[in-house]
Amino acid sequence: MEKPTLPKGTRDFGPLQMARREYIFQTIRSVFQLYGFQPIETPAMENLSTLTGKYGEEGDQLLFKVLNSGDFLKDIERISLASIDSKNLAPQVAEKGLRYDLTVPFARYVVMNRHEITFPFKRYQIQPVWRADRPQKGRYREFYQCDADVIGTDSLTCEAEIILMIKAIFRRLGITDYSVKLNHRGILAGLASAMHASGKEGSLFVAIDKLDKIGEVAVRAELTERGFDTKAIDLLFQTLAFKGSNQEKLDMLNKSFADSPGVKDVRAVLQLLHSYGDNEEHVEFDISLARGLTYYTGCIFEVKVHGVAIGSVSGGGRYDNLTAIFDAREKSSGVGISFGVDRIYDVMDALNLFPEKTQATSDVLTCHLDEASSHYAMRVAATLRNHGISAEVYPDQAKLKKQLEYADKKKTRFVVVIGEDEMRSGQLTVKEMKTGTQEKMKLDELIRRISDQN
Amino acid sequence: MEKPTLPKGTRDFGPLQMARREYIFQTIRSVFQLYGFQPIETPAMENLSTLTGKYGEEGDQLLFKVLNSGDFLKDIERISLASIDSKNLAPQVAEKGLRYDLTVPFARYVVMNRHEITFPFKRYQIQPVWRADRPQKGRYREFYQCDADVIGTDSLTCEAEIILMIKAIFRRLGITDYSVKLNHRGILAGLASAMHASGKEGSLFVAIDKLDKIGEVAVRAELTERGFDTKAIDLLFQTLAFKGSNQEKLDMLNKSFADSPGVKDVRAVLQLLHSYGDNEEHVEFDISLARGLTYYTGCIFEVKVHGVAIGSVSGGGRYDNLTAIFDAREKSSGVGISFGVDRIYDVMDALNLFPEKTQATSDVLTCHLDEASSHYAMRVAATLRNHGISAEVYPDQAKLKKQLEYADKKKTRFVVVIGEDEMRSGQLTVKEMKTGTQEKMKLDELIRRISDQN
Repeated sequence: MEKPTLPKGTRDFGPLQMARREYIFQTIRSVFQLYGFQPIETPAMENLSTLTGKYGEEGDQLLFKVLNSGDFLKDIERISLASIDSKNLAPQVAEKGLRYDLTVPFARYVVMNRHEITFPFKRYQIQPVWRADRPQKGRYREFYQCDADVIGTDSLTCEAEIILMIKAIFRRLGITDYSVKLNHRGILAGLASAMHASGKEGSLFVAIDKLDKIGEVAVRAELTERGFDTKAIDLLFQTLAFKGSNQEKLDMLNKSFADSPGVKDVRAVLQLLHSYGDNEEHVEFDISLARGLTYYTGCIFEVKVHGVAIGSVSGGGRYDNLTAIFDAREKSSGVGISFGVDRIYDVMDALNLFPEKTQATSDVLTCHLDEASSHYAMRVAATLRNHGISAEVYPDQAKLKKQLEYADKKKTRFVVVIGEDEMRSGQLTVKEMKTGTQEKMKLDELIRRISDQN
Repeated sequence: MEKPTLPKGTRDFGPLQMARREYIFQTIRSVFQLYGFQPIETPAMENLSTLTGKYGEEGDQLLFKVLNSGDFLKDIERISLASIDSKNLAPQVAEKGLRYDLTVPFARYVVMNRHEITFPFKRYQIQPVWRADRPQKGRYREFYQCDADVIGTDSLTCEAEIILMIKAIFRRLGITDYSVKLNHRGILAGLASAMHASGKEGSLFVAIDKLDKIGEVAVRAELTERGFDTKAIDLLFQTLAFKGSNQEKLDMLNKSFADSPGVKDVRAVLQLLHSYGDNEEHVEFDISLARGLTYYTGCIFEVKVHGVAIGSVSGGGRYDNLTAIFDAREKSSGVGISFGVDRIYDVMDALNLFPEKTQATSDVLTCHLDEASSHYAMRVAATLRNHGISAEVYPDQAKLKKQLEYADKKKTRFVVVIGEDEMRSGQLTVKEMKTGTQEKMKLDELIRRISDQN
């Protein structure tokens, strides 16, 4: 019998990790709800026809495909198999795949349910996604995304509210040193046009997107290879190198590229923050922000936490035609943000930001010394539970030491020891595990104390 | 462009369903926590070597297999493909599968983490599972299970607490007319022995398990086919037909089969309910309860709600050797219960038990009539949010009628209309959507009212 293992790039989450992850989920969820977003869920498996072609060629290769059930070779001529390759066989034996993100399934949901949905539709979705990426530190094959999107309006208040939500979430999580980077695809398109590279925006976005990772020299080489001339590349890096406040950058762009819609949008979004009584703290207009995905058309966002070597923890943007991938008549503008819980977890862990009491554990373990006291312990536990206090009875007849060890390891808050004295007097021996203090009290008193603290 | 569809047997959940499902999850979760269970999660994909052979031959066929990523035919001799069948090719091209239940992944988790776990380990797990079953009403290919298991003790207090948890969950959900059926594999084994059919327990359990669905005649036929003689089958049905209280059934079995360990266990579990200050209400000792899964060795449970045509909504039992499937040295006794959320949902829906306010929706929509009032509306929404009140600003400049329709469809509780008068006086026009009543009040007053109600 071989020892069981986990598939590469996947993880189990134990009780402590679960509690910490739930703390992050709950923080994000509560802010999403505060802004009027409603939850939906979509299935793990989607038809491959829904997923394929939506994430670029590289994305297609990272889709996990699910083998058709039953006799999946039934309709395939066996002799043709001798010459077939994986790429051609796959579509014949697998028609479903695991979702790669939450945005494409959301677009599919909107197209399929458009008659029941109230637009503008503000939905959030917190579910795992799967990518057949090479696993490495901080990169998993199964990981959770937390997305919020508004679809059916092109109002820039949505962009402003997304920034406000990011700030609210980080404030609640206790993350203080971070930037919300903001840019606009229209500004990048304007740059491309100034570089006489209209039509090559895609290559430009992809190259700029790598700037953080591979540096200027390599990006220059890539652009040259893709047919951009030196003058154009110089113009690009001159623009990207501009240092200044958000306002100064906007003014500079205004001078160089006239008042493009991208510049106008970014200015409006920043102004809206003030209309909401907030400000531009943490918000950095960054002309070099490009984002990898092709479907963005307007504002784009990315969040970086400073002081930790962890990539962006959140990103998103506006897409004008996402639903059109499923139905050409459906052109609803939308804008969304996605939070990467795994990276936020790593940030919180590195900065020691998890509150002490995040572990779901019991308030009380009732310990007993013989059968009679075990029955008494059961009544005590039942009464505690009736008062909403989580309680356990040690299940076996065991030495007190073993019972206390169990409570200690499980970080139980109080231990109640029940012996003959306790049963006679009704005065329970109560030990607070963290402080080690021990006192006698009636059950009522214990209930009052714990209820006051909870 | 084809219209997108969902894979057979899978579903989307919209905001209303999500809220109702979350109500069920949260009820179950809070009771699990009240009894000291801690959450874990395992990945959707497991190695097929972990899953295969654990659910019987039929179960193996229902596993969803995930195609190896990359060139999955790379190591396969092409010429051999001409003669291969699906069954032989599958293990060569798919080494991972989607989890079929939460019990086997839990056993795998325990074996892999035994040095970090505090035993007895009480874990709960709420995650989807996948089965390539033929979809039909109430049967899906992706559905959630909510499991609680204790591993590392054979104490019958666990069985008693499982029954108490079931009763607590149903009480909180408002389901009043139901039975927790209780039986013991030892009693069924005793029956098999009395039928001179030791060694054929498996066939017996499977046949009895179908009694509800296919009736006595068909079960008799199946048992005859499997080599049971008529006298034995008569003895079986005579025993199963016995009517009486839990106590009377136990006494009857005592007479016929002497005091078997199974009978002793069931009696002890029922007595323990009284030790906890509870009683046998809703608890039915049912000798005809068998359960399909092979790994049960002790008490088994199943919950049926009366008055609705929906199968069992919960089931479980004790298994003495579950971890031994991964490591023969690991013989930890465990016992668990699984709740089927989809069926509980259908029961709650049929019995109209969902509370009215389960939908996550906003407390307030702030409506505006022009740009100036939209900025005022943003400040109002921001202030409400700062007080923990969920609020939206209608994102577009639109007619008031359209804004009110949005609030109405989304079941928003209050609408605040902001025009010139309101901005001048600070007296907001507040409409409660449900009653239609409209009054003027300051923002402070609105905050006070909603906070009092929340």
